[in-house]
Amino acid sequence: MDSASGASPPFVHFIRVGWGDCDPARIAFTGRLAAFALEAIDAWWEHVVGADWYRMNIDRGVGTPFVHMTMDFRSPVTPRHRLACEVGLLRLGGSSVRLGVRGRQDGKLCFEGEFVQALLRAPDYIKFEIPEDVLAKLRSAIVAVE
Amino acid sequence: MDSASGASPPFVHFIRVGWGDCDPARIAFTGRLAAFALEAIDAWWEHVVGADWYRMNIDRGVGTPFVHMTMDFRSPVTPRHRLACEVGLLRLGGSSVRLGVRGRQDGKLCFEGEFVQALLRAPDYIKFEIPEDVLAKLRSAIVAVE
Amino acid sequence: MDSASGASPPFVHFIRVGWGDCDPARIAFTGRLAAFALEAIDAWWEHVVGADWYRMNIDRGVGTPFVHMTMDFRSPVTPRHRLACEVGLLRLGGSSVRLGVRGRQDGKLCFEGEFVQALLRAPDYIKFEIPEDVLAKLRSAIVAVE
Amino acid sequence: MDSASGASPPFVHFIRVGWGDCDPARIAFTGRLAAFALEAIDAWWEHVVGADWYRMNIDRGVGTPFVHMTMDFRSPVTPRHRLACEVGLLRLGGSSVRLGVRGRQDGKLCFEGEFVQALLRAPDYIKFEIPEDVLAKLRSAIVAVE
Repeated sequence: MDSASGASPPFVHFIRVGWGDCDPARIAFTGRLAAFALEAIDAWWEHVVGADWYRMNIDRGVGTPFVHMTMDFRSPVTPRHRLACEVGLLRLGGSSVRLGVRGRQDGKLCFEGEFVQALLRAPDYIKFEIPEDVLAKLRSAIVAVE
Repeated sequence: MDSASGASPPFVHFIRVGWGDCDPARIAFTGRLAAFALEAIDAWWEHVVGADWYRMNIDRGVGTPFVHMTMDFRSPVTPRHRLACEVGLLRLGGSSVRLGVRGRQDGKLCFEGEFVQALLRAPDYIKFEIPEDVLAKLRSAIVAVE
Repeated sequence: MDSASGASPPFVHFIRVGWGDCDPARIAFTGRLAAFALEAIDAWWEHVVGADWYRMNIDRGVGTPFVHMTMDFRSPVTPRHRLACEVGLLRLGGSSVRLGVRGRQDGKLCFEGEFVQALLRAPDYIKFEIPEDVLAKLRSAIVAVE
Repeated sequence: MDSASGASPPFVHFIRVGWGDCDPARIAFTGRLAAFALEAIDAWWEHVVGADWYRMNIDRGVGTPFVHMTMDFRSPVTPRHRLACEVGLLRLGGSSVRLGVRGRQDGKLCFEGEFVQALLRAPDYIKFEIPEDVLAKLRSAIVAVE
């Protein structure tokens, strides 16, 4: 997700990892890592598109259910550092988005993943025309994949 | 994960989906679906290998960190039915296992995924010889993938 | 919550405690214990009143927000035993219920708490007449507090 | 927890409330509110005592299990505002601390609670002399309760 010169810097969402996120192996539980990546994507919507999933669904009528996720876990996550989650839009389809997330602690890659969300009409989740202003913001957010 | 004749029936773990698992779209939140699949795999270890992750780590010294997960979400999960999670061992490597999980409600496929766990010495997470009795149970559990 | 002779036996909801529920102290995290008690109360509604919070809210139009909770933690909870959560209705007010929850593992009391839910019209959460059939079931469920 | 003149300002921990924290009533689920309060207390330890629960347990050998919690829920929490959790030390006992937490959104009180943690030797959780430097920092943090 490193971008070429001239492109906007990547969006990074910081997460405080705590005791309650960790399992008896003293590292963040796998299920929490998935939740962290999802939280980072929600924050990306808020920052880039101007509305998080809550506002997008309830205020704008755009449902954003996940249809796919894949994650590779590279290095343990602990409470000793903040978790920096870089999020980038990899692909914008007619009715879906593919996002990449990379979680780092102290500069070290801890996990990376790709997530696909369908974009449907809320609350009935049927196909529809994505509102033009949302589409415009998504278009401008596509990152150059390295 | 349907198995050939003579093979043992698949392991199914049942989960009660509740109000607190659901988001404002009135369906179980994506992060909870990942947690459900992980819980089903933990239950599979308890049933098939004879020790869940807790006992495997603490009593047997076998660490089981996840290195990969992928999930496809096919249909919403709600509290209206119990969630039946079928778990099968897809591949047994020298120091890892690959497991398949399929979540169904009322007979309908809701999600399916594959998960890879490393098998390392606990608590220091270095490579080691998996205890022979654990290995024997894992070997006997490999399912014929359809 | 032991009841006098003639009363119905207490409702007990069983929970599988797993690795992901535990923190680095190798016991279930406090936040998970609160979630377990809430899950047990949701299951109590399903069993005693005939509809869990999801159905009560969405199908019956009865909102059930919590206004109070208090918990005392007596003994650690671990994955070594199933967690048996006994739930009883302590008081039925005009627009609220007070429930008691006791969590036990292997016969030992792990935590106990009291929880108060308001009963309001869903989804707008204003005061209203609780449907008579719901009220009747709640009335019959009041337990004699020891 | 408002403090007299000369006292240090209260500690406030900010939490991003997201879609995944909310239930079908479109407000943060009760179980998440308990988790938010606990996270705020963990952050308080990090800020005031200099070590969060993870470091306190693992690096300093001080276990901090909860023995009591009580919460009153005053107003719904949603993703529309950051959640400001004010934490203050109400009482320092010989082997325990009592903390108060108040969660506010947009200036409005959403919940308030009190939490008691035992201070024990980790990892075996037996009574012991709290390290003097920890004790000194706790002493200096006691707030004047209004």
